[in-house]
This record gives sequence, C-alpha cells and structure tokens, in this order.
Amino acid sequence: MKTQIAIVGAGPAGLLLGHLLRAEGLDVVVVERASADYVLGRIRAGVLERTTTDLMDRLGLGERMHREGLPHDGFHLTDGERLIRIDVKALTGRQVMVYGQTELTRDLMDAAPGRDLKVIYEAGDVALHDPESDAPYLTFTENGTARRIDAQFICGCDGYHGPSRAAIPASVGKPFEKVYPFGWLGILANVPPCNHELIYTNHDRGFALASMRSETRSRYYIQVPLDEKVEDWPDERLWDELTLRLGPEVGTQIMRGPALEKSIAPLRSFVFEPLRHGRLMLAGDSAHIVPPTGAKGLNLAASDVHYLSEALIGYFRRGDTDAIAAYSDRALARIWKAERFSWQLTRLMHRFPDNDAFDRRMQLADLDYIASSVAAQTTIAENYVGLPL
Amino acid sequence: MKTQIAIVGAGPAGLLLGHLLRAEGLDVVVVERASADYVLGRIRAGVLERTTTDLMDRLGLGERMHREGLPHDGFHLTDGERLIRIDVKALTGRQVMVYGQTELTRDLMDAAPGRDLKVIYEAGDVALHDPESDAPYLTFTENGTARRIDAQFICGCDGYHGPSRAAIPASVGKPFEKVYPFGWLGILANVPPCNHELIYTNHDRGFALASMRSETRSRYYIQVPLDEKVEDWPDERLWDELTLRLGPEVGTQIMRGPALEKSIAPLRSFVFEPLRHGRLMLAGDSAHIVPPTGAKGLNLAASDVHYLSEALIGYFRRGDTDAIAAYSDRALARIWKAERFSWQLTRLMHRFPDNDAFDRRMQLADLDYIASSVAAQTTIAENYVGLPL
Repeated sequence: MKTQIAIVGAGPAGLLLGHLLRAEGLDVVVVERASADYVLGRIRAGVLERTTTDLMDRLGLGERMHREGLPHDGFHLTDGERLIRIDVKALTGRQVMVYGQTELTRDLMDAAPGRDLKVIYEAGDVALHDPESDAPYLTFTENGTARRIDAQFICGCDGYHGPSRAAIPASVGKPFEKVYPFGWLGILANVPPCNHELIYTNHDRGFALASMRSETRSRYYIQVPLDEKVEDWPDERLWDELTLRLGPEVGTQIMRGPALEKSIAPLRSFVFEPLRHGRLMLAGDSAHIVPPTGAKGLNLAASDVHYLSEALIGYFRRGDTDAIAAYSDRALARIWKAERFSWQLTRLMHRFPDNDAFDRRMQLADLDYIASSVAAQTTIAENYVGLPL
Repeated sequence: MKTQIAIVGAGPAGLLLGHLLRAEGLDVVVVERASADYVLGRIRAGVLERTTTDLMDRLGLGERMHREGLPHDGFHLTDGERLIRIDVKALTGRQVMVYGQTELTRDLMDAAPGRDLKVIYEAGDVALHDPESDAPYLTFTENGTARRIDAQFICGCDGYHGPSRAAIPASVGKPFEKVYPFGWLGILANVPPCNHELIYTNHDRGFALASMRSETRSRYYIQVPLDEKVEDWPDERLWDELTLRLGPEVGTQIMRGPALEKSIAPLRSFVFEPLRHGRLMLAGDSAHIVPPTGAKGLNLAASDVHYLSEALIGYFRRGDTDAIAAYSDRALARIWKAERFSWQLTRLMHRFPDNDAFDRRMQLADLDYIASSVAAQTTIAENYVGLPL
C-alpha cells in the first residue's frame, strides 16, 4: 500500500492528525497496535483547552462535545483548609471544557469511516523503516498477514511505549526525564461530583484531586507511594482518605459509590528532542509525557498535531519544506512551557518524601502568595487554559 | 538605666526602629556589640524597596538617599544569551532605589545624636534576661564596666548570630532552614557599571549578578562552590569569569578595576517562628535570612520594623496590647512570601550540583515563559518592588 502520510497510533493524537490531514484531502493511513475497544477503554485526561476544542470545532466534530461536555470557568487550589479559586474565565477570557479523552477519541473514531480516514486496528509487530530516507515505510501484520505501507512521511503518535521514538537513533535524539516518587490512585464512580469545579488539594496527608467526567460521574485521585497496590485501597478506605484530604468544607460533600475503575498511575515528566528525524515526526506522548497535574497531556498532543498538520499541509500544497524543518522547534517551545507548568503545579501540590519543614512552608507561602496576587493567579490561569499556539 | 524600649543591635533594623520610636517621643536605648566603624564596614544589599525608602522619607532622613541614590525602573534576567527586561515601573507603577546599606546605615547613625537616639557601641557580653516577664532587662559591659538596662520591651535586631533569638527557649521557637550548596563571591570596584540596571544571569557556567552602588562604583557577584577561597580568585580571574557568564552582549561592557572588597558569602534561607516571646520581639536578620537574590534582606528588616514600631507606638500611646500580640503573625505573613520569592529566584538563576538535564531545561523554560508572559513578569516585578505592607 502507498500513502502520503502513515500515522502510527490511533489514540487522540493520531486520529486528530488523521482528520486534519483528511480534511485537506491528503492520503492518510492510521495503523494501531490495539483494538478500537482497547483504545476506548483507556481512562485518561478530562479537561480540554480551548486550542483543543477549537480543533474539534474546525473539523466539525465538536457537536457532542458541546452538548455533553461541561464548560468550566475556573478551578480551585487548597491546602486542605481554605479554597483559592483560580477564575480562569475572568483572568483570561477563556474557558476549559470537561470532556473525557475517551469521549473525544470515540467522536474521532466514529467520524473516521465517513471521512474516508482509514484506520487499521490490531496491527501486529509495527515497525518503521528508513525514516531518514525519502522513502520511509511501515511493516506490520494484519490478521497474520505481513503488510507494508510506503509513505512520504511517517507520524509517530504511538505513545510513550510505541516503536516510533525508538526508530530515532540515540546519536540523534536526546531524552530528558524526571520521575516522581509517588503515583496517582484514581477512582471513577457514577456519583455526582462534590463540587462543580475541579479542586486540587495539598493536604498534610498528601495531594488529592476532585474531578469529574460529567454531572453524574466523578473522578477522584490521591497521591500514593509508588509501592502501594490497588488492593491496598478498598473503595471505603479511598473515600475516607479523599474526605480527609479534601478538608472539612469539601470532603464532606463527597458522594460515595462503587468504583467503575480504580488504578495507580506513576507520574513522569519526559521530553524527547528533536521531534523530527528525516521524514519521521513524533507527536503527543511518543515525544513527551507530563504528570497529570494540570491536565496538559492530551492538550499538548493536540497542539503538536496542530503544528504538524500545518507543516504537512504546507508541504503537500505548496512544497514548503521549511515548515517541516521548523516543526520540531515550533512544537518544543510550547511543550517545554507546558512541561514547566505541569512540573511546577506538581511540586506545589504534592508532598515529596525528601521535603523538609522549610519546603513545606514554601508550598504554603506559594499558596498564600497565589491567594493574594492577581498576577500569580493569572500565570496559573493562562497556563491552565493553554498558552497561545 | 531604665528605658521604655531597649534595642539590641545598631544595624539598619535597630537604628530604623530606634528612629521610628524616637519620632513618637518614646524612650529608646540601642546597644551594639561592635563599633560604629565596624557596622559601617559591612558591605551588604544595595536595592531598596519603596516601602523602605518611604520609611526614610517619613523620618525626614531621605535627603541624601534621593540625591545620591539611583532610582531604577527595572532589571534584567538572562540565560547568558538573551536579555529579559523586567519593567518594574511599567508593571507595578513603582521604582526601586539603588543605595547601599552602608549609606543608609550612615544616614541613620549620623541623625541619631540630633534626635536624642542613644546608641551604646562596643557593648560587651550583651545578655537578655527575663523576656517572658513584665520586667525584662539587658546586661552588658561598657568600657569594662558592668551595665544594666531595664526596659518594658526588648527588640532583638542583632542579626543571625546575636543573643536575642537564643534567648527564646527551644520549646517556644522553631527554626526553618535551607542551606544552599554554593556561595556568592562578590567584588566591589570603583568602575562604572556595565549596565545602568541590574542583570541577573543563569549561564551554563553558573550564576552571576551585575550590580552597582553608584554610577562610578560597581558590585558584581558570581556563584562559587562552598569550598572555594577568595585567594583562588585573583581579580583578573574573577573579571574573566564575569565576562563569560554575563554573555557576549553584556560581558564585553564590563570595566575592570582593582577590588575594594572581595569576599565569599554563603547563601541561606532561614525563618524563626514566632517573632515574639513575652516582651522580646525579633526583627530583621535575627529572625530570618534570605539568600541575596532579589535583595530582600534589608527590605524585609524594614517591613518588620514598620510593623513592630506600629505595635509599640500603639502600646505606649493607647495601651493597645493586641498589636503587640499580633506582631509576629503580621510580620511573618510578609516574611514567608519574601522567603518564597528569594528562594524561587535563587533556584531559577543558579546551577545546583544535583540538577540534571531536565532541571536545567526547566530553568530555561521558566525564563522562556517569563520572557513571553506579562503576568509572569508582573509576579516578579511586584515581589521585587516589594509586596504591600
């Protein structure tokens, strides 16, 4: 098979990129290791920046998102006692949209056949070949049969563990990484959220986040040591801990219910430079990971895809090679700023095992300062809603 | 001898407090371990917040400061390549004043006799007694003779190493501390500054600061490991290093000259809580130290003294004991915020031995973000010029 652009990975980054390129009439094939159901089963972020919702609107795929999603004007930080509201709407003029990554992926997936976006699921042994040449190609197996796709460009949207990044030689690419000494234990439950906006807390007992997917589905997280197991946390223990960490004002508003999903995810900051090697371009989690604090992961994938689709469209429409060459630097400038925000909000809101009494006071002084300064609230709000493209 | 208020320490905090109390006609005696010349010989900070210059003006002691000081509208941050100007005046409507601590101390010292502010220099073996009682007193020796001052209040303005803080029992007070793995090597020279505003740089080779005391006197600093000695740094080596760290644009503007003073100072963050024990109140360096990044030390002493003078005046004029009781919390709220700013600016602008490649990228991303965000510049400017009292 021949195509203009082969995309590895049918998560939100790959599907969004595929749709943006198809909307310009380009030939695209998406190859995904997993099944469609598996892709939809991954529970991830739930807060979309305006830059992300704009992309869905541009594609004409935002209808359900606007109908079912919850536009949010702000969110809260707390030390377990007082609530500090970050009035994102008032400070930036923009809102964010609470709409699960699963839902967004489903919208993109459902729209694929009607727009002639070919997605091959359950592709085995996906491998990238000759990315530095003018004739890169993919090989994989489909129902046990060996397949090959020749493409002019390969886009690696296959996540942290995918083969795309690994196809860039160590002499070319450099990883930057920070691993955090804790994970997030998350619970999803069909109960109304305790608050209509998100609440991030840095309690003496550790971080917690009260979040939601809809008005009837709550998503909560707590920070736990890396060696904890989900089995250590029966639902009631987790609800009790959330009640404590979210403090007397908020914690008592928590409605409890059986866990639909409960899992522990490690936290990681990761950036791989550059994003391009010859005719292979990385986008989304294949190139960078943020800790979930601040919900930048999916949004960063969307901005990568925005830059990358512009570059590819410029190339195929006008033979513009400069935009292809500039993609990595352009995307990385925004990626590093989002990495910074996620890292800083993570440090502000979590208890670190090696933090001493002075460090703890610095966290509290930071929250104190944020509570008192419009400028400080604005820095948080403008990053939360998404820095300009 | 009897007095209403005994002040331990005749540095800027003690003298400023003495003058503020004398201006209200209160009885004050200042007791200083060192000689006046020794006090004036200490080379310290040189950037005054508006809150500090306002206090001098209120005392009618700002005349020379306004004549000889340099009002600054802004300063610069740099990574050794591009300059990021923080336009303090435009962002906050206020300026800072470059005027050496030595000069401010001299103005306060020179004005003391005319305002009947008694200062006893070269007091030996200063000791505080019964601070928790209604009749605290000081003992010391003056020219070999034992002396005693009975006071209604004792104010400890005697710096980090003075006896005042030590007079608060460990069961009452708690120290918070952060020691940094480097020091500042400073040089003072009679050469015009390389730039009319301060420049903080975080170069690959480490931090440097281009500062000044006047239009003909420069003050430069570089970060050095704690085990370095001044003897390792002949003037030419230091000028060479400054030229490198300040980068091609700025470094080449450096005028070299013989060192009037050259020394290495360790960096420390320190806060002692509470600031009051019975009738003993701490102010300035006796209660807290900031790293010099951002020049908060003297200014924080001035705001302590502002709060403390208000409390004491309220007590002696109106018998108001609430203000005395509230002094510690009131001052600490501002102290912790200034500690936060100094700690954060220190972390942003220095190379830490345990920082990895990711940490370095976070510093650069922080500078990138600051360069691009008015809100981020405003947070720095509003802290630099001094948070509201």
